[in-house]
Amino acid sequence: MCCTTEIQAAGSTFGNYFRVTTFGESHGGGVGCIVDGCPPRIPLSEADMQADLDRRRPGQSRITTPRKETDTCKICSGVSEGLTTGTPIHVFVPNTDQRGHDYKEMSIAYRPSHADATYDMKYGVRAVKGGGRSSARETIGRVASGAIAKKLLKQFSGTEVLAYVSQVHQVVLPDGSVDHDTLTLDQIESNIVRCPDPEYAEKMIAAIDAVRTRGDSIGGVVTCIVRNAPRGLGSPVFDKLEAELAKAVMSLPATKGFEFGSGFAG
Amino acid sequence: MCCTTEIQAAGSTFGNYFRVTTFGESHGGGVGCIVDGCPPRIPLSEADMQADLDRRRPGQSRITTPRKETDTCKICSGVSEGLTTGTPIHVFVPNTDQRGHDYKEMSIAYRPSHADATYDMKYGVRAVKGGGRSSARETIGRVASGAIAKKLLKQFSGTEVLAYVSQVHQVVLPDGSVDHDTLTLDQIESNIVRCPDPEYAEKMIAAIDAVRTRGDSIGGVVTCIVRNAPRGLGSPVFDKLEAELAKAVMSLPATKGFEFGSGFAG
Amino acid sequence: MCCTTEIQAAGSTFGNYFRVTTFGESHGGGVGCIVDGCPPRIPLSEADMQADLDRRRPGQSRITTPRKETDTCKICSGVSEGLTTGTPIHVFVPNTDQRGHDYKEMSIAYRPSHADATYDMKYGVRAVKGGGRSSARETIGRVASGAIAKKLLKQFSGTEVLAYVSQVHQVVLPDGSVDHDTLTLDQIESNIVRCPDPEYAEKMIAAIDAVRTRGDSIGGVVTCIVRNAPRGLGSPVFDKLEAELAKAVMSLPATKGFEFGSGFAG
Amino acid sequence: MCCTTEIQAAGSTFGNYFRVTTFGESHGGGVGCIVDGCPPRIPLSEADMQADLDRRRPGQSRITTPRKETDTCKICSGVSEGLTTGTPIHVFVPNTDQRGHDYKEMSIAYRPSHADATYDMKYGVRAVKGGGRSSARETIGRVASGAIAKKLLKQFSGTEVLAYVSQVHQVVLPDGSVDHDTLTLDQIESNIVRCPDPEYAEKMIAAIDAVRTRGDSIGGVVTCIVRNAPRGLGSPVFDKLEAELAKAVMSLPATKGFEFGSGFAG
Repeated sequence: MCCTTEIQAAGSTFGNYFRVTTFGESHGGGVGCIVDGCPPRIPLSEADMQADLDRRRPGQSRITTPRKETDTCKICSGVSEGLTTGTPIHVFVPNTDQRGHDYKEMSIAYRPSHADATYDMKYGVRAVKGGGRSSARETIGRVASGAIAKKLLKQFSGTEVLAYVSQVHQVVLPDGSVDHDTLTLDQIESNIVRCPDPEYAEKMIAAIDAVRTRGDSIGGVVTCIVRNAPRGLGSPVFDKLEAELAKAVMSLPATKGFEFGSGFAG
Repeated sequence: MCCTTEIQAAGSTFGNYFRVTTFGESHGGGVGCIVDGCPPRIPLSEADMQADLDRRRPGQSRITTPRKETDTCKICSGVSEGLTTGTPIHVFVPNTDQRGHDYKEMSIAYRPSHADATYDMKYGVRAVKGGGRSSARETIGRVASGAIAKKLLKQFSGTEVLAYVSQVHQVVLPDGSVDHDTLTLDQIESNIVRCPDPEYAEKMIAAIDAVRTRGDSIGGVVTCIVRNAPRGLGSPVFDKLEAELAKAVMSLPATKGFEFGSGFAG
Repeated sequence: MCCTTEIQAAGSTFGNYFRVTTFGESHGGGVGCIVDGCPPRIPLSEADMQADLDRRRPGQSRITTPRKETDTCKICSGVSEGLTTGTPIHVFVPNTDQRGHDYKEMSIAYRPSHADATYDMKYGVRAVKGGGRSSARETIGRVASGAIAKKLLKQFSGTEVLAYVSQVHQVVLPDGSVDHDTLTLDQIESNIVRCPDPEYAEKMIAAIDAVRTRGDSIGGVVTCIVRNAPRGLGSPVFDKLEAELAKAVMSLPATKGFEFGSGFAG
Repeated sequence: MCCTTEIQAAGSTFGNYFRVTTFGESHGGGVGCIVDGCPPRIPLSEADMQADLDRRRPGQSRITTPRKETDTCKICSGVSEGLTTGTPIHVFVPNTDQRGHDYKEMSIAYRPSHADATYDMKYGVRAVKGGGRSSARETIGRVASGAIAKKLLKQFSGTEVLAYVSQVHQVVLPDGSVDHDTLTLDQIESNIVRCPDPEYAEKMIAAIDAVRTRGDSIGGVVTCIVRNAPRGLGSPVFDKLEAELAKAVMSLPATKGFEFGSGFAG
């Protein structure tokens, strides 16, 4: 008992000034986030988050997990008459597709590469139902708070954040095929794999289809660009911008690597 | 703008291992808390928190704020089949008595001694509706997480926490009139002012009644005792137990002082 | 072993923006602090801290602990050509009066009311030599970082911080006998007990002398006033200014109580 | 002024339980670290850190920066009679090679890819002398605290940490050429480039020599292996082990990427 408790700790909070806490399991009452430290008087509504939540949702196309969830968010506190109040913003997304029975099989065997075995060792409970907190559904809270952060950055410094798929398995988008100065969200959204180059998008979709029919999945690389980033973000030494970004990215389920600037090619 | 934003910060989280985040305003959708770091396999249900939430609720007797609220809590995540899972526990209490109109008068004048003026200066918004985050209703999240903490402490180390009113204005319960080794919650709950000494309870109620009829309020002192406290709680230097307790207590609305051990009498 | 380690934690750091870490034992190589987060381009030299370190030092008068220490501080990093650089400021004060042998007696018996017994239980070591980290000598790091904070506050907002002794045992300085608008450091320093009222200062010194000759010590109350405090310091809910101050004050050795504003008289 | 101060923050501390704070500039009085949270009764002496500090030191071979520094560490607090006391461990390494004049040229032009320009914008000071806190010399505090962590891990769980160079520019050590189960520090230290494969070590040295003679430098990849890692390290969601490692690694000067497990090959 002692040794299990000893390693217990609270890891669901990220950030110091703009502080995000996520909560919820795939198959409990719901998931969401608390954002503390958002400045007051920022226009904010559910619609600001819903677009990104819809993009996150599985089951939008034939190439993703075929689960149908409607992730409708609700702001429960921190916004009054359409403006943030400077108090914690509580965003809640009820679970609707609680198909706990689908996971019955997993009660017997651990899924390979999932966090189930570790959770079981550490907490003595199988968060069997849909992966618990290690499930991709936990990312709903991240997406909602990220949407708030994007709105804030846009308003304060004209900062724009865009991300697209630049590699799927062995299909690698060549350097320079995307113009980072003019890239738009529409270009990224123009196909289901979210690669702004139509030719490579087709190749990537074909690669995914090939493994999908075998019931398997494959890896890929996401490239994220930031335009008009405020200068001087991050703190020296341990809290450098690239260090904080690396932590955030590597804490996402199934992420295996992170590069910044010239990366491993440097 | 810059200087207002500069002092913006996130203060709604307390603790490192057992980490509590509260959210919600008096008159938004609801209030509550996220408790991150609670060990798994602890039996927990809404009933564990409801008793303390009921005790907190105003309008239970003639001597408190005459507002009638039913604070019914709901656990939205972190508990499965009656046991904590080790993941964040999300407790939500919907607001039902949203009498925002009652506060219309305050839109014009700041209430004396309330945090309204400071909020207005700092955030540029009047969290007018019932005091916003500085309202006593924010304490619902504290009460719910405190109930979880009490259950945990009871189970792990037999620790018991009790508190009672030991002074109301000039009515001071004499030292030694309460036996701290045998005091029970029933004794404390035996009267509406929660002073375990019936004679002094009457005097205190009389003192409150006297000012209440004038539309005023008066101060008091709460004595808290802990039995079977685990030894060695807290960390040396800045995070001593008495320092953490002082911070927690002094962060409660309208608290003016804190004593530990022999206190100012020492 | 497990249970001892379990409660091990790091408590020597205080603050988020202006972050102070203290280190050192009474009878090791030295004591001091690291201040991280001090803005750049603030004039700073050892002299700024030395005055307060000298005031802290025991053995200045007949009424304090009769130990003779010269606490000469040295800035080892964070200042270049007389200006802060925005990097961590490292202040070191070597120990000179390492009279470990004086404490031999305590190797056998715990000193009453000292933290020795708790340390022994928690760490399995007697920090016998002068009280270890629970010694008043740990406060050297606090005094040095406090001097930096005072300089910063003075420069940015004209803020002044003064403290004086307002009570020694049963000698209580009456309300109103000190004018908080005009009080100066010179008035406080005009006598060895640091009470700006000469008549009451004499009474306090007499009270201390009375117990000192018996080899005993007595308690007192320090009143701290802040002029031109920046508005809006602290964060709502848990990190209110009075809560942070209470934690800081209650973490000082031998502190038993804290009042803010009208305090227990309210 | 306001906007510069606004982004000021304290980033020199890492970790919650075993908390490391580093301090010092390349050309001030010295550099080092405070380690808070190290359990008591661990044997520790300067020799435990000196070996790793010697390995870090530039100027050991013809392929590194030709600066000669003797980084002799001193434990100033936290250790008594050869054992840790559970209090903050203060390690100090005086600067001896303070050749500030060598950097005179840089007072005029920013060094490409160094942090000078950012510091200047953010702090209004050029930490010109040797790179200030962004200098590789800041890593001395990391190396010293890392040595303490390694000793601790070895003692508590038999954990071993080893790292070697697996790529220099286009010289890539093939997968499988190093046996991670039997690899020893001696094998790594058998050549100046610290690649355990002698043949590839020669190729790497040749590649470095080629650019070194041109006054240039090239990139490389370090592979780190951990044997007998305790299970369950890290916390779910944001504080996963790989996320914390990524942050730590990406906060090192000049680091551009991080992979975990199967990495980008996955």
